[in-house]
Amino acid sequence: MTFVTDMLATVSRRSRELIGWKPAELQPRRAADVVALARALLSRRGEASGTALARDILDGYATLDAEQRVAVLRDFAEVFGADRAKLEAAITAYQADPTPAAAASLHAAAEPRRQELIRRLNLAPRGTAALVRMRDDLLAALPAHADLKVLDDDLVHLFSSWFNRGFLVVKRIDWSTPANILEKIIRYEAVHEIRDWDDLRRRLEPEDRRCYAFFHPRLDDEPLIFVEVALTAEIPAAIGPLIAEGGTPLAADDARVAVFYSISNCQTGLAGISFGSLLIKQVVEELKRELPKLTTFVTLSPVPGFAKWLAKERRTETGFLLEEERDLLNALDEPDWRADRARVTKVDRLLARCAARYFLTAKTTGNRPLDPVARFHLGNGARLERINAGADLSEAGLAQSHGVMVNYLYDLGRIEENHEAYAERREIVASPPVRKLAEARA
Amino acid sequence: MTFVTDMLATVSRRSRELIGWKPAELQPRRAADVVALARALLSRRGEASGTALARDILDGYATLDAEQRVAVLRDFAEVFGADRAKLEAAITAYQADPTPAAAASLHAAAEPRRQELIRRLNLAPRGTAALVRMRDDLLAALPAHADLKVLDDDLVHLFSSWFNRGFLVVKRIDWSTPANILEKIIRYEAVHEIRDWDDLRRRLEPEDRRCYAFFHPRLDDEPLIFVEVALTAEIPAAIGPLIAEGGTPLAADDARVAVFYSISNCQTGLAGISFGSLLIKQVVEELKRELPKLTTFVTLSPVPGFAKWLAKERRTETGFLLEEERDLLNALDEPDWRADRARVTKVDRLLARCAARYFLTAKTTGNRPLDPVARFHLGNGARLERINAGADLSEAGLAQSHGVMVNYLYDLGRIEENHEAYAERREIVASPPVRKLAEARA
Amino acid sequence: MTFVTDMLATVSRRSRELIGWKPAELQPRRAADVVALARALLSRRGEASGTALARDILDGYATLDAEQRVAVLRDFAEVFGADRAKLEAAITAYQADPTPAAAASLHAAAEPRRQELIRRLNLAPRGTAALVRMRDDLLAALPAHADLKVLDDDLVHLFSSWFNRGFLVVKRIDWSTPANILEKIIRYEAVHEIRDWDDLRRRLEPEDRRCYAFFHPRLDDEPLIFVEVALTAEIPAAIGPLIAEGGTPLAADDARVAVFYSISNCQTGLAGISFGSLLIKQVVEELKRELPKLTTFVTLSPVPGFAKWLAKERRTETGFLLEEERDLLNALDEPDWRADRARVTKVDRLLARCAARYFLTAKTTGNRPLDPVARFHLGNGARLERINAGADLSEAGLAQSHGVMVNYLYDLGRIEENHEAYAERREIVASPPVRKLAEARA
Amino acid sequence: MTFVTDMLATVSRRSRELIGWKPAELQPRRAADVVALARALLSRRGEASGTALARDILDGYATLDAEQRVAVLRDFAEVFGADRAKLEAAITAYQADPTPAAAASLHAAAEPRRQELIRRLNLAPRGTAALVRMRDDLLAALPAHADLKVLDDDLVHLFSSWFNRGFLVVKRIDWSTPANILEKIIRYEAVHEIRDWDDLRRRLEPEDRRCYAFFHPRLDDEPLIFVEVALTAEIPAAIGPLIAEGGTPLAADDARVAVFYSISNCQTGLAGISFGSLLIKQVVEELKRELPKLTTFVTLSPVPGFAKWLAKERRTETGFLLEEERDLLNALDEPDWRADRARVTKVDRLLARCAARYFLTAKTTGNRPLDPVARFHLGNGARLERINAGADLSEAGLAQSHGVMVNYLYDLGRIEENHEAYAERREIVASPPVRKLAEARA
Repeated sequence: MTFVTDMLATVSRRSRELIGWKPAELQPRRAADVVALARALLSRRGEASGTALARDILDGYATLDAEQRVAVLRDFAEVFGADRAKLEAAITAYQADPTPAAAASLHAAAEPRRQELIRRLNLAPRGTAALVRMRDDLLAALPAHADLKVLDDDLVHLFSSWFNRGFLVVKRIDWSTPANILEKIIRYEAVHEIRDWDDLRRRLEPEDRRCYAFFHPRLDDEPLIFVEVALTAEIPAAIGPLIAEGGTPLAADDARVAVFYSISNCQTGLAGISFGSLLIKQVVEELKRELPKLTTFVTLSPVPGFAKWLAKERRTETGFLLEEERDLLNALDEPDWRADRARVTKVDRLLARCAARYFLTAKTTGNRPLDPVARFHLGNGARLERINAGADLSEAGLAQSHGVMVNYLYDLGRIEENHEAYAERREIVASPPVRKLAEARA
Repeated sequence: MTFVTDMLATVSRRSRELIGWKPAELQPRRAADVVALARALLSRRGEASGTALARDILDGYATLDAEQRVAVLRDFAEVFGADRAKLEAAITAYQADPTPAAAASLHAAAEPRRQELIRRLNLAPRGTAALVRMRDDLLAALPAHADLKVLDDDLVHLFSSWFNRGFLVVKRIDWSTPANILEKIIRYEAVHEIRDWDDLRRRLEPEDRRCYAFFHPRLDDEPLIFVEVALTAEIPAAIGPLIAEGGTPLAADDARVAVFYSISNCQTGLAGISFGSLLIKQVVEELKRELPKLTTFVTLSPVPGFAKWLAKERRTETGFLLEEERDLLNALDEPDWRADRARVTKVDRLLARCAARYFLTAKTTGNRPLDPVARFHLGNGARLERINAGADLSEAGLAQSHGVMVNYLYDLGRIEENHEAYAERREIVASPPVRKLAEARA
Repeated sequence: MTFVTDMLATVSRRSRELIGWKPAELQPRRAADVVALARALLSRRGEASGTALARDILDGYATLDAEQRVAVLRDFAEVFGADRAKLEAAITAYQADPTPAAAASLHAAAEPRRQELIRRLNLAPRGTAALVRMRDDLLAALPAHADLKVLDDDLVHLFSSWFNRGFLVVKRIDWSTPANILEKIIRYEAVHEIRDWDDLRRRLEPEDRRCYAFFHPRLDDEPLIFVEVALTAEIPAAIGPLIAEGGTPLAADDARVAVFYSISNCQTGLAGISFGSLLIKQVVEELKRELPKLTTFVTLSPVPGFAKWLAKERRTETGFLLEEERDLLNALDEPDWRADRARVTKVDRLLARCAARYFLTAKTTGNRPLDPVARFHLGNGARLERINAGADLSEAGLAQSHGVMVNYLYDLGRIEENHEAYAERREIVASPPVRKLAEARA
Repeated sequence: MTFVTDMLATVSRRSRELIGWKPAELQPRRAADVVALARALLSRRGEASGTALARDILDGYATLDAEQRVAVLRDFAEVFGADRAKLEAAITAYQADPTPAAAASLHAAAEPRRQELIRRLNLAPRGTAALVRMRDDLLAALPAHADLKVLDDDLVHLFSSWFNRGFLVVKRIDWSTPANILEKIIRYEAVHEIRDWDDLRRRLEPEDRRCYAFFHPRLDDEPLIFVEVALTAEIPAAIGPLIAEGGTPLAADDARVAVFYSISNCQTGLAGISFGSLLIKQVVEELKRELPKLTTFVTLSPVPGFAKWLAKERRTETGFLLEEERDLLNALDEPDWRADRARVTKVDRLLARCAARYFLTAKTTGNRPLDPVARFHLGNGARLERINAGADLSEAGLAQSHGVMVNYLYDLGRIEENHEAYAERREIVASPPVRKLAEARA
């Protein structure tokens, strides 16, 4: 150990020399120091000190406060673009003789030096994790600093390569999983909060529960994304019973349906690097292998954009809602509207119809479904299978979707076809009942 | 399992549809089919069938004969360059307003579509291994087909990212290592042949022997590079005793020197993606931790270019060799010149002097040492420590270097400094005795 | 799985046939059924159905209520003794010709059939765990049923063989240990309660904390015993600071002392099968290997019998306590006696002296120390190193020992010598200060 | 490490002191020394030095030559019997009042001290392995030294407890198994020799080959027994094709039959401690799980006693052989009798009939089948399924059984029934064709 420490101490001294630190200073204290070190890291022809310099930069960055970090990131974005002289020479050469080799040289000349910087930073011990955290900072600052966009693109480009799905490993999470990983499952669960270790155990230990996560070899003990699964006899129409305390678990052998009721990303720094689709497919295969009697793989998913969209529709007199429907929906404005059971039945029936229409007609400017969860699952090749009104009576559920949840069906024989219909023809793949519902009149 | 098989069968059918195969044909049989599939893989907006298509392409490629493979590779190089129209538009845009974002767009537009193709192929199960074998084919064809160079550059660019040292795992190889890995050690040993399992065991089992290899998580059971180590009391001057049968092993606790006597790359498809330097440093650290009494880390290395260089010097009358030296070296032309022990002493002394001069003065056009092994170790920050004449009396050793071998010293406190001297000032870092030897006169 | 289930179902049918169950009955319901099955298990010459029968017996036993279980155990004790006729024949044969072989035959004939029964029950899946639980029941019933003693002896005899220390595996418990094991650590901690998962983490995660447990290969995921360790700079004189929340952990490298502050047995069914001594020695070796700078290995132990003993001494006018000492100790009868700081100092000084005397003079009828914790550590070869008054101010600590705790020192070079002094000469090995304290006068 | 070494050195000194060695002597050199140490080990009340003493005894024993070892073993057998005085007192007590407790005391008093000695020796590091080797020596000496029988009984008694099947772990052996284990498979294969690593690989790597072994947690890396399996389409009638080089392996999915063609015990010191039956059952279950299409589990087994039995029958004029059969069998006396193909057909037909009769009628004095392999498989509940003449044309095969081999069928639904028929009624369970063959006349 001392040996390693000595080597590191040596190199840190070198880092300090490189940018003119005084011996007494052990940590970079200013954004400018970090940028100066980054410049040194890029300038050195060799690699012998690269790893140590990279570590010094990332450690130095970590000691900075939020404002200084943004300053560093903006400097990275600005300072380490492509070398303009080289780029222009490459353009000239390409225009003179547009061979494949000239195009390749142009590509190389146009590569922002940021990418090489990121690659070199990645060589530091735990460098990948530090870069993921750095992107976390960047995403927070991006709305206010559009100039960071180019750096974000570089990070996304390289993360896509490093988090290539071939490197991801799916592992089952259960009650015999190490505690340091389980505490992250508690922390990262984003859909249906896990209150404590007992609540966690209820999601993992019963024989009708499963949980799977993706891991990456360079991010030890850090799940990237995880999915919670309930095994049931029928496609479930509500979330409450699935996550309630108590009750007798279903014998795994009696299960016919696997319900993906919660999918949580763990690393905000990896936003936009998608592996959710792959995880679902791998888990489906894993479950089929273990429990051949399973026939149906569905989600029980929230509908985050529905209430907002419906509010707008209710205000639009020329919309699809009839006058009496509009009246009925006024119930939603009452704080405790679900107390009147008779009316609830009617309202829920109408909400289901509205939701069907929401999925099939509400689109983004890019002609995609407005609902982000729908975009995710339809993009993965799932089919919108069933709409369940009164499915999520939690405060959040009522607020975002008046209690509506939906099932997306993963039929592996149809995934590709569905995906193509969606990706190439912007088609919303929905079951006949959903389709009929969307067309129904009161 | 049947489930997976069905899904794959389905997708293969799709692949066949995509390029108009007849149902009865289960394998692509022509280079053109493979290229057509690659085109389909790149053209599809979505990814649902990507993994299966990628697998079909790689499997199809593997069924082709050598000539057809070269045809595929040349097509890849030619067909999947950057999109010229897009590239030219990006040039125009950049020239109009050379912002960082415009440079980034230009970089994206200049990226050969080959890179995206390779990335998508990598998604196939065992895709990375198949791509490494593909580069193996490419390197064999490259001398005759310069147009493949652009494709090679793309592979090197992506391999450098995927085989990033952060992903590499060092593992000790010993007699309890799985047999399927050990057989690869036997097969890949490139410096001092391992004859059979008994010979292998002699290199692994005694307590004064160590072996370490690098592995990559996506290339299961495939060592990338390995190093064999002998623990000794002194820096060794000859290879024979190190790899001889029999003899009592040194107690590990009595060892003071670790000798790296064989470093073998295992994957020709990864030529030029360097991890040798890193392996040595990690092994040094590992050994220091395990055996704190070790003080010295050296190689015992061949000198592959020496005999050829010396032959030329002997023909050069105006060179550094004196007349009587030239006469003495005529001994080398006799088949059994080492039989005359008295003369051998004189010749070996002269050979050592010549070798010192070879290392310090013989340079490539790029002002690097002519000797490739020297380039590797000096580039890693080692120092040329000692020249040993009569060190390798095997047929190969006599042929390539008249029996001369050398020790390179890895002094971790000096590695960076040495590396810099070499990388930036082209300095040959050598010990004072070697330096003195090079200047000595008869 | 179905295959296994079928096989098991078949055998259960056989079990039912063997003792005349009706087909509809799936579980034995009476103690007599279980005993009848046990008789069948012992009577069958073969083993083919043995495993399944054994499982049926243990499962059947588990379904019984407490009273029925005791009935089963008493039947086992009574019914499955040695075969009297055989035994008497063996006695006669031995008396006629007392050869070693005749003695061996006598030994075999005298073996209670209970032992063979237990060995066969152990063949059931999870049989060992079920037998350990059965002994748990037995120990609870033993005080009221002296006839169970012979069965207990048999279990102890066989457990001693099966839990032979050669089979035990020591594992470090830390924050990356599976949760199903950690929850058992929380449950079994017997000395200083672990309140919840956060409290557990404070005992495992800081770098100055360690925890080790023994496991047995047939009792998966079930710790047998564990020890909690704190690394400190000095021998600690009080438990409070060791288990308090917050505080900066000591760097492991700065530690010189390892403190065993809690040792908990997990399986009451293994009471009397001692492995605590072995665990401490193995942990000492483990720690020495990892942290060579550790020089001192001590416990911080409770003194459970002290308060009771002292109460008696205080009532004994002719004892060693002087009149004024007796008066001073009256403070202990006040509920909040530690509030008066000045007096506390005096009382604590006196308590330390009394404790020293307690350890060195209070003996069982077998001339062992009265204190059970002292018996454990002195029996392991430790030395009574230091007495710490005011060391445990918890309610329990004040109740059992007026706050006194002690350090036992494990000096591996002296362990054997100490052990011998204790085991063979009944000597209480104590440090000179403790010895002096015991002899001191006020 | 030094710490441990020091501790051990100390204890060894103690061992030497205990029996009066001079300091310079580091190893016991005489049988008497070992026995003296054993006496010390048993006499010490405590255990602190037990482990070290046990190690010294086992190490000392290992340094002795064969003759001295036998002397030690005979001393163990003689010296460490039951304490006669105690035994006689226990007899008297039992006769006075024959309670269960008195019987238990008698049992304890009759236990030979050898058993306690063996238990204490087992505490040494690697003690179990050393004791297994010790029994190896004992078994070799037993025929000449009947007085060792009592010691053997003690070892068997304790080994049966320690190698309790609950402790055994089945592991698949394949080409990714560590080399140090594979070399033991090569060494221990007792039925069909494995010539070298290539031959081994042919038995492990093809997808229609399996190999499983039992391991014990205290005998690391030492297989206890292993079985080699071939997956086939039909029940095989000859061994040659199964172990031949080359040939295309059957797809595992097309296999219907699993053939156990070689079962080898690895530890002669465990002779008589049976786990073969258990291994076969576990492997059947494992294979069923992995390959549900397997329907038939058979052996292809040698018939070691057949040729010898037949020779005797041929000499018995009043036996079951007819005159012309006797004449035909004279062919067997010709060195190359299988050259005459026409006659071979007739001879083989007759041999099959003779073999059927051999299995069904040739019995030991205990009314068991004469054939030891038959005893093993019938005892496990298998059925003699088919007789294959001309099945093993190797020299050994012709010598022991004139080429005859048989299949035993493991039908898990029948195992128990078959076992009972065999174990309780001495019935030879055979298929109808074998039964008919035995009754057939020429």
